[in-house]
Amino acid sequence: MEIKIMKNILDKNQNKADEVRALLKNKKVVMVNIISSPGAGKTTLLERTCGEMTDKLKLGVIEGDITTDRDAQRLKKYNIPIVVINTEGGCHLDSHSISKVLGSFDLDDLDMLFVENVGNLICPSQFDLGETFKLAVVSTTEGDDKPAKYPMLFREARAVLLNKIDLLPYTNFNFESFRADLSNINPKIPLFKLSCTRGDGLDEWYKWIGDQNLKPNLIPNQL
Amino acid sequence: MEIKIMKNILDKNQNKADEVRALLKNKKVVMVNIISSPGAGKTTLLERTCGEMTDKLKLGVIEGDITTDRDAQRLKKYNIPIVVINTEGGCHLDSHSISKVLGSFDLDDLDMLFVENVGNLICPSQFDLGETFKLAVVSTTEGDDKPAKYPMLFREARAVLLNKIDLLPYTNFNFESFRADLSNINPKIPLFKLSCTRGDGLDEWYKWIGDQNLKPNLIPNQL
Repeated sequence: MEIKIMKNILDKNQNKADEVRALLKNKKVVMVNIISSPGAGKTTLLERTCGEMTDKLKLGVIEGDITTDRDAQRLKKYNIPIVVINTEGGCHLDSHSISKVLGSFDLDDLDMLFVENVGNLICPSQFDLGETFKLAVVSTTEGDDKPAKYPMLFREARAVLLNKIDLLPYTNFNFESFRADLSNINPKIPLFKLSCTRGDGLDEWYKWIGDQNLKPNLIPNQL
Repeated sequence: MEIKIMKNILDKNQNKADEVRALLKNKKVVMVNIISSPGAGKTTLLERTCGEMTDKLKLGVIEGDITTDRDAQRLKKYNIPIVVINTEGGCHLDSHSISKVLGSFDLDDLDMLFVENVGNLICPSQFDLGETFKLAVVSTTEGDDKPAKYPMLFREARAVLLNKIDLLPYTNFNFESFRADLSNINPKIPLFKLSCTRGDGLDEWYKWIGDQNLKPNLIPNQL
């Protein structure tokens, strides 16, 4: 009974996600669905990325939060289009909410749209938003067992960002164990070791995310 | 439509939770529903608590995880009854799954049953398990904005444990801001500052959790 209901909800979500994906493809906009636990560093990653990339790519952001616009406030200084979706208790964004807010963006004047999903390692990975790809962000302070314990996201993501690498010396995080678990789930997935506060590893990240752009003439290293 | 379905699911969950609560009250077993983000330190808290309290209280543990029994493996050394519930993708425990596994415990020989919920700051706070009370665990490395951004749990919990206080010097966590947000949501909630790895604040925690026991003759400070 509940499984049937869930299938129904997921089917409806998938249909709308397919519409969103077709629209974005037509407009040559890359949508990146960023998923992590609460406090893993999604917003700090976006602060860094917007600070670095706004002169190379036309960026936009959708901020998914249960309540408050605190994350959006942190990004205001970059003068890019930002829309907040408050889920009012909901544990994930869905394709219908994304579809509704896309009209607030000038898609002809956008290269890449970052979606900061609700802080949750589980439910957001079950709902296709019509994104070009999912990005998994995980932090060293959460422990090395997250890929093994929450495999769905790591199976689906196009890349994994291991953030808070600056705090590694103060934790019992075992990098080899983390990498081994991740390899079991998704052997070829790119893994970036970052500190979004201190700056470690960001150049590789900027290069990679720039390369994901759909408009070849705008890829930074070809300018 | 979806709201009606959700109401139906929650109503059924509530009925079973009421049954569980009545049974546990009759057996004088305190059930503590521990909720946090992934990697905030629930299992390390349980390791510490079992290590300290098993000679004073008869403890049991239900481990909720999407997959794997890794957390339960970490608690095996305490020789207490442990049952693992794998949700197979589900983002929270519910009262039906708790009710089913209660038969695995000798409730007449138990004082306190800890439930380590699935690592998720959102969905678990929406499903009553029949617990005596909820406990919110949050860590300094997640940032000081968690009560404001995820208010439901902090509204419902009987106490908040701020873990990883040893990592505070390496973060931009603002304790005053954290406490102010928490006070707005739940002005009188007890707040413990802990490091479950280094040991800070644990004596106050042991005292408090011991005092929550329903059997007055077993409260440690009255022995």
